[in-house]
Amino acid sequence: MNALPKFFGAADPVAYGGKAAKDPLAFRWYDKDRIVHGKRLEDHLRFAVCYWHSFCWPGGDPFGGETFMRPWQHGSDAMAMARAKADIAFELFRLLDVPFFTFHDADAAPEGTTLAESVANLNAIADLFEQKMASSKVRLLWGTANLFTHRRYMAGAATNPDPDVFTYAAGQVRAALEVTHRLGGQNYVLWGGREGYETLLNTDLKRELDQLGRFVSLVVEHKHKIGFKGPLLIEPKPKEPTKHQYDFDVATCFGFLQRYDLLDDVKLNVEQNHAILAGHSFQHEVALAQALGVFGSLDINRGDDLLGWDTDQFAMNVPELALVFHDMLKGGGFTTGGLNFDAKIRRQSIDPDDLIHAHVGSMDACAQALLAAADMLDAEALTKPIADRYAGWTGAEGQAILAGQRSLADLADRALASGLDPQPRSGRQEYLESLVNRYV
Amino acid sequence: MNALPKFFGAADPVAYGGKAAKDPLAFRWYDKDRIVHGKRLEDHLRFAVCYWHSFCWPGGDPFGGETFMRPWQHGSDAMAMARAKADIAFELFRLLDVPFFTFHDADAAPEGTTLAESVANLNAIADLFEQKMASSKVRLLWGTANLFTHRRYMAGAATNPDPDVFTYAAGQVRAALEVTHRLGGQNYVLWGGREGYETLLNTDLKRELDQLGRFVSLVVEHKHKIGFKGPLLIEPKPKEPTKHQYDFDVATCFGFLQRYDLLDDVKLNVEQNHAILAGHSFQHEVALAQALGVFGSLDINRGDDLLGWDTDQFAMNVPELALVFHDMLKGGGFTTGGLNFDAKIRRQSIDPDDLIHAHVGSMDACAQALLAAADMLDAEALTKPIADRYAGWTGAEGQAILAGQRSLADLADRALASGLDPQPRSGRQEYLESLVNRYV
Amino acid sequence: MNALPKFFGAADPVAYGGKAAKDPLAFRWYDKDRIVHGKRLEDHLRFAVCYWHSFCWPGGDPFGGETFMRPWQHGSDAMAMARAKADIAFELFRLLDVPFFTFHDADAAPEGTTLAESVANLNAIADLFEQKMASSKVRLLWGTANLFTHRRYMAGAATNPDPDVFTYAAGQVRAALEVTHRLGGQNYVLWGGREGYETLLNTDLKRELDQLGRFVSLVVEHKHKIGFKGPLLIEPKPKEPTKHQYDFDVATCFGFLQRYDLLDDVKLNVEQNHAILAGHSFQHEVALAQALGVFGSLDINRGDDLLGWDTDQFAMNVPELALVFHDMLKGGGFTTGGLNFDAKIRRQSIDPDDLIHAHVGSMDACAQALLAAADMLDAEALTKPIADRYAGWTGAEGQAILAGQRSLADLADRALASGLDPQPRSGRQEYLESLVNRYV
Amino acid sequence: MNALPKFFGAADPVAYGGKAAKDPLAFRWYDKDRIVHGKRLEDHLRFAVCYWHSFCWPGGDPFGGETFMRPWQHGSDAMAMARAKADIAFELFRLLDVPFFTFHDADAAPEGTTLAESVANLNAIADLFEQKMASSKVRLLWGTANLFTHRRYMAGAATNPDPDVFTYAAGQVRAALEVTHRLGGQNYVLWGGREGYETLLNTDLKRELDQLGRFVSLVVEHKHKIGFKGPLLIEPKPKEPTKHQYDFDVATCFGFLQRYDLLDDVKLNVEQNHAILAGHSFQHEVALAQALGVFGSLDINRGDDLLGWDTDQFAMNVPELALVFHDMLKGGGFTTGGLNFDAKIRRQSIDPDDLIHAHVGSMDACAQALLAAADMLDAEALTKPIADRYAGWTGAEGQAILAGQRSLADLADRALASGLDPQPRSGRQEYLESLVNRYV
Ligand SMILES: [Co+2]
Ligand SMILES: [Co+2]
Ligand SMILES: [Co+2]
Ligand SMILES: [Co+2]
Ligand SMILES: [Co+2]
Ligand SMILES: [Co+2]
Ligand SMILES: [Co+2]
Ligand SMILES: [Co+2]
Repeated sequence: MNALPKFFGAADPVAYGGKAAKDPLAFRWYDKDRIVHGKRLEDHLRFAVCYWHSFCWPGGDPFGGETFMRPWQHGSDAMAMARAKADIAFELFRLLDVPFFTFHDADAAPEGTTLAESVANLNAIADLFEQKMASSKVRLLWGTANLFTHRRYMAGAATNPDPDVFTYAAGQVRAALEVTHRLGGQNYVLWGGREGYETLLNTDLKRELDQLGRFVSLVVEHKHKIGFKGPLLIEPKPKEPTKHQYDFDVATCFGFLQRYDLLDDVKLNVEQNHAILAGHSFQHEVALAQALGVFGSLDINRGDDLLGWDTDQFAMNVPELALVFHDMLKGGGFTTGGLNFDAKIRRQSIDPDDLIHAHVGSMDACAQALLAAADMLDAEALTKPIADRYAGWTGAEGQAILAGQRSLADLADRALASGLDPQPRSGRQEYLESLVNRYV
Repeated sequence: MNALPKFFGAADPVAYGGKAAKDPLAFRWYDKDRIVHGKRLEDHLRFAVCYWHSFCWPGGDPFGGETFMRPWQHGSDAMAMARAKADIAFELFRLLDVPFFTFHDADAAPEGTTLAESVANLNAIADLFEQKMASSKVRLLWGTANLFTHRRYMAGAATNPDPDVFTYAAGQVRAALEVTHRLGGQNYVLWGGREGYETLLNTDLKRELDQLGRFVSLVVEHKHKIGFKGPLLIEPKPKEPTKHQYDFDVATCFGFLQRYDLLDDVKLNVEQNHAILAGHSFQHEVALAQALGVFGSLDINRGDDLLGWDTDQFAMNVPELALVFHDMLKGGGFTTGGLNFDAKIRRQSIDPDDLIHAHVGSMDACAQALLAAADMLDAEALTKPIADRYAGWTGAEGQAILAGQRSLADLADRALASGLDPQPRSGRQEYLESLVNRYV
Repeated sequence: MNALPKFFGAADPVAYGGKAAKDPLAFRWYDKDRIVHGKRLEDHLRFAVCYWHSFCWPGGDPFGGETFMRPWQHGSDAMAMARAKADIAFELFRLLDVPFFTFHDADAAPEGTTLAESVANLNAIADLFEQKMASSKVRLLWGTANLFTHRRYMAGAATNPDPDVFTYAAGQVRAALEVTHRLGGQNYVLWGGREGYETLLNTDLKRELDQLGRFVSLVVEHKHKIGFKGPLLIEPKPKEPTKHQYDFDVATCFGFLQRYDLLDDVKLNVEQNHAILAGHSFQHEVALAQALGVFGSLDINRGDDLLGWDTDQFAMNVPELALVFHDMLKGGGFTTGGLNFDAKIRRQSIDPDDLIHAHVGSMDACAQALLAAADMLDAEALTKPIADRYAGWTGAEGQAILAGQRSLADLADRALASGLDPQPRSGRQEYLESLVNRYV
Repeated sequence: MNALPKFFGAADPVAYGGKAAKDPLAFRWYDKDRIVHGKRLEDHLRFAVCYWHSFCWPGGDPFGGETFMRPWQHGSDAMAMARAKADIAFELFRLLDVPFFTFHDADAAPEGTTLAESVANLNAIADLFEQKMASSKVRLLWGTANLFTHRRYMAGAATNPDPDVFTYAAGQVRAALEVTHRLGGQNYVLWGGREGYETLLNTDLKRELDQLGRFVSLVVEHKHKIGFKGPLLIEPKPKEPTKHQYDFDVATCFGFLQRYDLLDDVKLNVEQNHAILAGHSFQHEVALAQALGVFGSLDINRGDDLLGWDTDQFAMNVPELALVFHDMLKGGGFTTGGLNFDAKIRRQSIDPDDLIHAHVGSMDACAQALLAAADMLDAEALTKPIADRYAGWTGAEGQAILAGQRSLADLADRALASGLDPQPRSGRQEYLESLVNRYV
């Protein structure tokens, strides 16, 4: 397969054309060098293209087969196919002019007949990646290991009832972490794809949680051992593929990390679609991760509010993104994290250029949202009303309460003695909602 | 109002009649003195009737008004009405022959024009309760304070933007806790009814979490100060009335208690309907609470799987309850907790005896479920397959891994060197499901 | 009560100020006289303020009481209160400069001790409305009867097991329809609030559907008898207050109207929040109503995608509205229908001016959406790709198939004989989504 | 492959052993010859094993690959594999002693490179089925065509934007219908797998509904032409694989059939999991199908109330099934329909005998439920209270209203003149719920 120049219709990287651009493939908002709050847009958004959805998924769903018919998925030499896939991937990175990419071990290199062979395949493709990265701008946002597709993992990896599966997973993660390190990855992700259960009838919940705690601890220790500086990232998801996943949501992951003393080394990779599957808004999950000190990175996509599974659609939802970026910017923005497109084109989007349109449309939506967020922050549109609303807590009595200088009895006595009758104040929700509409 | 003897149709306590009982109001399964696993059924199940749904709720919903027309809710002397209500309540306790009841301050006594008056009202009714308890078997499972109905709490109690509301709530909780203590309550509940937010646009999440942590800490300190021995119980609920509640589910509450160092003094009161609103099975929430060491008590009711709000229906779902009680029994059953009927009859169930039918039907469902659970445990129907499934982890290598005696590299090296190829084993879910059907 | 001039802070009607307006209460998009597709914006959008949420709801929810403390809800003379309420209502209509309002009988006038008294009260207030309408621009979009709040309707009105309740409801509807006619109402709405069931255990589904069919037929006949020209409107809602409502969604209502031969006289009033509670997008429900020829009017609000009950929030969701208005405009827009604000401010929005902010913000969101919709139509942004996609069906063979000129065997024979192998074409979803983002 | 005797562990058909049976594989409730309401249990339940889940699905899910490793799915000669699969299928039918099976064309025979070849393959396997049926008791409940797996159908079959796809589908359906006819199938099913849309942005809803109406009409005409006596069955499903499916639920399908004048020839095949995905209880969908006269057959399985996708688990939910069967028995039971196991074992259930356990467990659950239903009917446990509740409608006035002998004015006048004040009566929901618990 040597079809590279012909796969995509476009030959030149997508360029910024402004809001009135005529070219269907121009960026209308993503002017990567535009300075916002002292940083280039590219450095704020830190876009990453992911391997799995864009280059590995053939377009199947539970009721239908392959639709995309990618040439690199129809050949007999698995390593040659993997190299052809890498060629297309790096061509897309170039066309989109993105600063980052992400991958699982299984995305990049074919599984061998033994773990040793799988690791060797991965390292061979990592050599190719190194070479390609040398001649391109793209860097590695994070790597990860696929511990959920193979049938050996059908009952989990770390939480498997069989310690040999735990051990096999350890072998895979070591290799993936080391490859990530070698390629300069800025984070390493652990997605607990099948770390959960299908039925409690056959499950020892307590034991499985301890296994999971142990596994993550092992990865933390190894990270330190090899000098990998980036954080580990756990990605909350409540369900799917399993009925219940231990990394249910941000709050659950926080409790887990705290319980196994992992807060120093592990942060969270929050995804919009996983947030809503857990019954939370994306903004909630990001704000909570920030409040709890575990904000790491974002899988930027969107789910369908009316569907109960992970649709992983490209994010086009500007008003929702603007509020998320508002909170993120307020908290200082990304350090090692970024916006990873854990998003797939619909299985009917079978033209190669649909891949480009999807990324460009979503990058533009993110850029527009970030600019709106920056404007809201500059105007203190939301921060000022919030500060005013809680002003009472910055007074002497509020501070004394929070500092532990008042007992329940102190407070009760004061309430009784003073005939305290606090009057409610308007929450002004509609005003704030319409105010936000002025910015997006 | 002196209508006591006429309110309910029944005059004698409901009695056990066996499965073939003809009397519509006999217990068919709840033979309170039957010994199961060394304890009387009554002592296993520890039923409590709640005040709020059964004696306070008038039958309204968001689209309709009062349907029940209870005589004690139609009078001009609030304290007289409260006493009449207590008469009916204790009459129901007697008819149902339940060992416990539960209440909020606002259920028992009318709010006064000042906090002082409210507290005085509560204490006056507590006097009446003491007197009635002296001549009846019923004891207090727990008390709590209503921090969500009055408009002063519209934006939360502990998490209110106004520290004066926090202070007022402290006054209410001190009184309710002390009354609970005086009445021999075995637990004290904190339900965070409006400890959450309606919109993040006006909310400082981090600050509110700290406020909530402080509040619970104050209650813990006061409990110790007054010598109250029972645990505090937090009741997880994900939403409703607010859009998001901080006590979302068991995992979230655990993380919160851990973060604010409250695990020693606070346990959880788990409710079926809140579990499913959070996207969890009731069994999951109970099993997780046990695994995390925070299991306290149960609000026994059931939600409608197809509705998105808290329907609080009487639990009639025997197969579901059997699995919950299985896990609970396996863990030793209740200590201070019990089965509190946080359940309301439908608003169309306007006959006084509907209250009796509902409790009796649900008590029977619980008894049937507990007996099935005990049988399953005796037969090791589920415990044996689970022990077998995880047997690998009790071997030397499994133990070494869990004990931290293997590094990631150790495991990876072994996997590589041994050509490890673990084979999956059947999860046998359908077999286990049909096995459970033999017991319920 | 003579508090009129002081209730709202604003004294002058809200005016259009353009996007850069400084006044927090200016319209930024709603320039009512702007001509779009040959019609004034006001005539496109046909805004109506509703009585129930804005003037009748006290701010309660299932866990809390009144928050708003409206002066007209705290008096002993019910008719005087109703008049005071009307004063405030018409003052709000004036301030918002809306062309329409809507009400239930129970919103406008207090229920009497008999039906006759209730009807008399309603007519007395209708006199007042007539008088107020004479000196203002506001007209009546529709009226309706409240057949769900009173306990007599707890088991439904038309579908009640008791024919006397059906009869009582007939009395109420006749009066409300005649008052609507007298006030020049352009439609009459039937919302089946409790036409559904709580449990199938006590329900005869078939019988209740026939009762409902009969009831609507009676109203149709009466409408013709009195010369009321507007359509009846049924409002789909899947659940809440009942577990299941017979007017579940557009498709269900269509089947019902067809079955009882009501399609000529009855159209649908579609609400966003009810659409999502039924598992549909708002755009779906509107598009389907148009496809089936039953589109009538819109209750413009929005639900919370993460909550399972009818939150009836003010619509601020411009991108969603733009697609709905796109389809509506494409179909010719409203005839007798309009945008009725079946929306309530949050119960924490206790300042009188919150009512104004909410309406203004939502009117602006609608105006912005309509302008975007018109631009999309002008550019054929969506209509052209759709026409192209189905072009095959406008060819000879496609037309022959649709016209019934091909049998299954004809088609099968052609497929076999020609070795037919149709190739899929891209659905271009991501491109279209990003295209829409250019307009909103 | 000649591995038949070794695939399943069991060699003899599963036999009835009674409730106390020790054999894990005995039936405990399903005594097929037991007479209930004048018919054998086997003739009431009419169980059918389906081909697709049990013999075609390899155990994959969106995040994982094959787990089952069925020998007949790992060979190079597709027709030989299809024959080996048939051997195993008929062996399972024999072991389970079921009276029926069901299949799609694509389940039975491999797709060829042309439609002609596919049809030939199907007919060749149909020959084999005929032969096997001759020497076994199993008959064909229904056949159907798979119009959703192949990429040509990615945008629907009948509702495809390309009329050539419609035509190709016609070719497939003719062949499948004729094979079903030849094999003595008692029904023919149309499941609209992708008859729906992914996004309204590229969809002409009205046109697609007309296409679907035309397609079903063509099949009806062909059925008559070839003398196929059984009904066509449409299977409601709201979503998955598409975002919205036109056969959303029973009410929607009824409206569709009515609109295209198909009610005489088409009934519905109702599935539990599809019911709950549509927001309905299974009992609701069955009761509604009966009320509307479109009840045909049942896909017996169960979904997970907490998951948003079609899990198609084996039905083990006795109390739920008992109510469904109660309504079904009340309506006379099945005519051509039956209980088709559209159910799949979990992907971790990798032992061949898991297939047997799953079917046996579910057959037993159904048998237990049917017996409970028959007992409830015999005791008039539910039918009597319902008849009493609606008794008013059987009186003279109730009948007159329903017969159209009263106008709205008549009723209103009576309500006014008589001072009608109907009093609500208890719905007795809790009593009825606990009553049902006595039977299951
Ligand atoms: Co992700
Ligand atoms: Co995802
Ligand atoms: Co509760
Ligand atoms: Co509850
Ligand atoms: Co509405
Ligand atoms: Co609504
Ligand atoms: Co099915
Ligand atoms: Co299904």
